[in-house]
Amino acid sequence: MSITITAFRNSPDQGRGLARDMRVRWALEEVGQPYRVRLVTFAEMREPEYRALHPFGQIPVYQEGDLVLFESGAIVLHIASRFPGLLPSDPDNRARALSWMFAALNTVEPPIVELEQTTLLEGDRAWHAGRRPLMEKAIRKRLDELAAWLGEGDWLEDRFAAGDLLMVTVLRRLEGMGILDDYPTLADYAVRGTTRPAYQRAFAAQYAAYASGGEG
Amino acid sequence: MSITITAFRNSPDQGRGLARDMRVRWALEEVGQPYRVRLVTFAEMREPEYRALHPFGQIPVYQEGDLVLFESGAIVLHIASRFPGLLPSDPDNRARALSWMFAALNTVEPPIVELEQTTLLEGDRAWHAGRRPLMEKAIRKRLDELAAWLGEGDWLEDRFAAGDLLMVTVLRRLEGMGILDDYPTLADYAVRGTTRPAYQRAFAAQYAAYASGGEG
Repeated sequence: MSITITAFRNSPDQGRGLARDMRVRWALEEVGQPYRVRLVTFAEMREPEYRALHPFGQIPVYQEGDLVLFESGAIVLHIASRFPGLLPSDPDNRARALSWMFAALNTVEPPIVELEQTTLLEGDRAWHAGRRPLMEKAIRKRLDELAAWLGEGDWLEDRFAAGDLLMVTVLRRLEGMGILDDYPTLADYAVRGTTRPAYQRAFAAQYAAYASGGEG
Repeated sequence: MSITITAFRNSPDQGRGLARDMRVRWALEEVGQPYRVRLVTFAEMREPEYRALHPFGQIPVYQEGDLVLFESGAIVLHIASRFPGLLPSDPDNRARALSWMFAALNTVEPPIVELEQTTLLEGDRAWHAGRRPLMEKAIRKRLDELAAWLGEGDWLEDRFAAGDLLMVTVLRRLEGMGILDDYPTLADYAVRGTTRPAYQRAFAAQYAAYASGGEG
């Protein structure tokens, strides 16, 4: 059954690979599954037809036969459950990998997205400069804890798994903010993720959609 | 194998049932599994011994034999995967339930937590009154979308599932903010969740720990 995902027709990050379809592309590349991409405009994402697929009008949507999924975390988990390569086979280790998936998206990502979003939406407000150190502090607290856990390890648990995939995409959101420079082991960890051949293929595919001006 | 979870010795919300062990208690009650609770202080949560169980020093931790899990979403998913009652048996419907679990925690909850946290930590700053409408707008956008999806339905999909469990605990965080009053179908939906016998038992157990002054 063929897999189709949706992605932005007009990349808000200009092809930097931060849009959330990147997680799904990467996961599909890790498990060796081909997929098609349907590019959608922001206007299309507000239409009832798209809302029937994605109640919150975001990308990516994942379609496989009659199955329609949304939320990048759920889609990555579905892919990881359906095809071997992204979750350990032992049930306990598999459950640990789940903890890291949720930690990436619920504990580490939210303060990073808050800084991103408020910079975008409130960057010109008088209060933004005053709030920035508070937001950075919240991010650094999580990075301190993550670095303490990771130590000198390559991955969050014994082997690369879906939790690492999500965590690396979350850490990439910090690029250009100057924060990750203070966490060399986390920066190295992110590079370990992004130099995986599957990541590289996913990035190239996402970039190609951007570079073609959203043709596809 | 007996199940033990951790919870706050001193309830920050004074027994209102918003601490994240509530989700896990509720899930365990839904599937009919007994559990023990280990109450921990904020000081204990900062200790290396606790950090070995939970890298981010939060509650709840879930222990079952040698298995140690953290992140309430991951724990609820583990419980739902291990015991019948919280996920559909059909694989496609099961995957849909996952989408709702992640949507609750990654799309609906973050703007609510931002309002909560900034009210707590920045409530006395000059900018807070100016930011509040922006934060409320972000919450209302998600509630509009959620209400549009739910329509007149009882649950997010055909039957009550783990995604509803998480979504109801997320909506409960809005109590007392006056926002949910504008969304009668969502308020009813939350009540449908909190009047379930399993929720009531979970709430009573969490409240009892609070009312005993954290003895337990």
